[in-house]
Amino acid sequence: MDKKHRVVILGGGFGGLAAAQKLKRAPVEVTLIDRRNFHLFQPLLYQVATGSLSPGEIAAPLRGVLSKQKNTQVLLGEAVDVDPQAKRVMLRDGASFEYDSLVVATGTQTSYYGNDSWRQWAPSLKSVEEATAIRHKILYAFERAERAATPEEARAWLTFVIVGAGATGLELSGALAEIARETLRHDFRRIDPQKARIILMEGAPRVLGPFPEDLSAKAEKLVTRLGVEVIKGVMVTNIDDAGVTFKRGDSSEKLAARTVLWAGGVMATPFGRKLAERTKSESDRSGRIKVNRDLTIPNFPDIFIIGDLAHAVDENGAPLPGVAQVAMQGGRYAARVIRARVEGKREPPPFHYFNKGEMAVIGRAAAVANIFGIHVSGLLAWLMWLFIHLIYIVEFQSRIIVFIQWGFEYLTFSRGARLITGEAATESIHQAGASKNRAASGTDER
Amino acid sequence: MDKKHRVVILGGGFGGLAAAQKLKRAPVEVTLIDRRNFHLFQPLLYQVATGSLSPGEIAAPLRGVLSKQKNTQVLLGEAVDVDPQAKRVMLRDGASFEYDSLVVATGTQTSYYGNDSWRQWAPSLKSVEEATAIRHKILYAFERAERAATPEEARAWLTFVIVGAGATGLELSGALAEIARETLRHDFRRIDPQKARIILMEGAPRVLGPFPEDLSAKAEKLVTRLGVEVIKGVMVTNIDDAGVTFKRGDSSEKLAARTVLWAGGVMATPFGRKLAERTKSESDRSGRIKVNRDLTIPNFPDIFIIGDLAHAVDENGAPLPGVAQVAMQGGRYAARVIRARVEGKREPPPFHYFNKGEMAVIGRAAAVANIFGIHVSGLLAWLMWLFIHLIYIVEFQSRIIVFIQWGFEYLTFSRGARLITGEAATESIHQAGASKNRAASGTDER
Repeated sequence: MDKKHRVVILGGGFGGLAAAQKLKRAPVEVTLIDRRNFHLFQPLLYQVATGSLSPGEIAAPLRGVLSKQKNTQVLLGEAVDVDPQAKRVMLRDGASFEYDSLVVATGTQTSYYGNDSWRQWAPSLKSVEEATAIRHKILYAFERAERAATPEEARAWLTFVIVGAGATGLELSGALAEIARETLRHDFRRIDPQKARIILMEGAPRVLGPFPEDLSAKAEKLVTRLGVEVIKGVMVTNIDDAGVTFKRGDSSEKLAARTVLWAGGVMATPFGRKLAERTKSESDRSGRIKVNRDLTIPNFPDIFIIGDLAHAVDENGAPLPGVAQVAMQGGRYAARVIRARVEGKREPPPFHYFNKGEMAVIGRAAAVANIFGIHVSGLLAWLMWLFIHLIYIVEFQSRIIVFIQWGFEYLTFSRGARLITGEAATESIHQAGASKNRAASGTDER
Repeated sequence: MDKKHRVVILGGGFGGLAAAQKLKRAPVEVTLIDRRNFHLFQPLLYQVATGSLSPGEIAAPLRGVLSKQKNTQVLLGEAVDVDPQAKRVMLRDGASFEYDSLVVATGTQTSYYGNDSWRQWAPSLKSVEEATAIRHKILYAFERAERAATPEEARAWLTFVIVGAGATGLELSGALAEIARETLRHDFRRIDPQKARIILMEGAPRVLGPFPEDLSAKAEKLVTRLGVEVIKGVMVTNIDDAGVTFKRGDSSEKLAARTVLWAGGVMATPFGRKLAERTKSESDRSGRIKVNRDLTIPNFPDIFIIGDLAHAVDENGAPLPGVAQVAMQGGRYAARVIRARVEGKREPPPFHYFNKGEMAVIGRAAAVANIFGIHVSGLLAWLMWLFIHLIYIVEFQSRIIVFIQWGFEYLTFSRGARLITGEAATESIHQAGASKNRAASGTDER
């Protein structure tokens, strides 16, 4: 045989990267395609949004990570379509790639439950750009509050709403509370950042839905202790410039808040929908494609879906959660299946997710964890979270830097990466300012 | 006396921040206004552009730096006009501030010598945004070269031109050479990054014009050893999408290069010109305002100009260079004068610039320095550069982090911050791709 088996992997997140690395010594030719040139350590993205870390510290260039792997090439590109009969993926720039095996690990995107207009007022936390936009939004709100003309205006700028009390929502609100209560404490002259209201809103009757109930209760207690107000069992009906409208029971309430962050649901990307269409596969409510027990699409044994885009089930038929562990184990599993096929060996048994547990961090020395069924909370859970996250950050360098950054922050409450950047950002300051002439010039009347 | 003397400082760079800090215990009310919420350690900006450091590592939030200084408030805003008779500065957002003393430290902007259309092809290194744009441009060039359809196209993507061989030009070209020869060495499959051409162009007959001649010669030798081609005594006549056109003697040459970086001159900002107009002051060729020996504007003893925007002269009438040291010493001097006036004491003697020396870094263990007239080059100069820069970074935190980052990079040649980010960035990939369909799809024909 002259020509090598071609494996195309779409996406360099936890799943795609794990698949590529597991194929290191396989007799195949791997092409990893990602829209970005870096692997992002997504679980720490909220720390970029809240000014603790810089984007470079939680990202590793894909080329660098895979440079020693001679059977693998990395390409910058975005998959937009697939022809499963011709075994070919098409990129946005017009290029196309033939595959013998395709590993789709493109993940999901934020869902505003059909209200796409909310996106402009309530950014979500999916990319480095969104994280820096959120950072800008948070820091800028305190700047505007400092220059507000009326107490009402200042209050609206100092009211922060986080919609969705999953792990991301808890992390964001906890960090925001620490920014207001500690980091910025002495930084302003006219406002008191400690008086900022941070409100965590959730539709379900408890925070951290997928966690055991006692840990949910514990998490709520921890985040409340940090100064976050938790409002449960409410439905957001509108988000705009002025704040959030929501339904609690039968009554509709409106909350004036200049900063709203979205930590709600996810849905399939346009490419994910295209893939489902081309392969005539079934999707679940959020657009995740239902896969076989070996993570392939029914009728297409050469197409694997791993990570968040897959609706995979365990032995008991329960769907697997959209977490990094599932993606990584799925990626390695797909690589093992491909290798077995190429080498003519027996395929491994169906994918089994080995659940090591789950954890969510709330703030300094505050976290909850469920490790092999043992429930832990507070300082111990936080130390476990710290340890596990440091171990998993891909690049050795980032690991050291992040560790020191955290150590410093723990001791001083300072946050090194409090930059408001971006051309658009500067413009928005001027626009906001221009439309508020009266308000802004009020600062001179102190 | 009931009302305190109001000092308004425009700009939170080296000069403005030094002035504010020196006024810490003065019986005045200080307002520091900057377009950004952070102080930028500009001398290390080239390391952000070349992927060694993240923006957060070379910036310190102004509020944080000044939070303990109770007589000082920090405001986000951009000065656009001044009324020296009414003693009032106007911000872009419509606010205005009255002052008793005004310290203008707004710096300069990049000059393309009247060819503003070059800006879009040849970014300069003035802001965090430009630094990340340059980083994107450099890394993206290698990505495009990897996917180029023809050898000519690949060569144009692998040709980098830096215009201007001052300290910034040397730093950029040296870092670029190291990226190509070391960092990316094993990262690509179709191209050899080591074959990249890095060309440093200069109009003058030698590099590092303001330095003593022997150090210029040494710097050129060091940068040449890194693999940079130095072309001196040429005049750039055009820059566009395809490359650089320049005159050497009587002949005009064209160099195909997809990446051109501008390290040329500076000029006054629009606010600087407005200030000169309002105060009817004299400016030099690059728009810097001529100031008295006490750094005030002639006829306006209450307006100080410090840093790059000032055309100040020393005892012998020679103009002071536009470097951080001059700005910092000028800022502290202005603060001393203001304090003496407010306290009714005798004003200090004319400003005297205490020149500790100058240095330029070229690469790993390669720098030139002129310290109190002693000329040093190579490893020793580099160690001095390292030491001095670490000492001066404002925030303690950044200092440690940067040090470790550098240590790691020195040992491994890795660069942690190799991220291609930005919405515009992603779009440009797609646009470039779309217009080059044929070229891009060529990658499938390997």
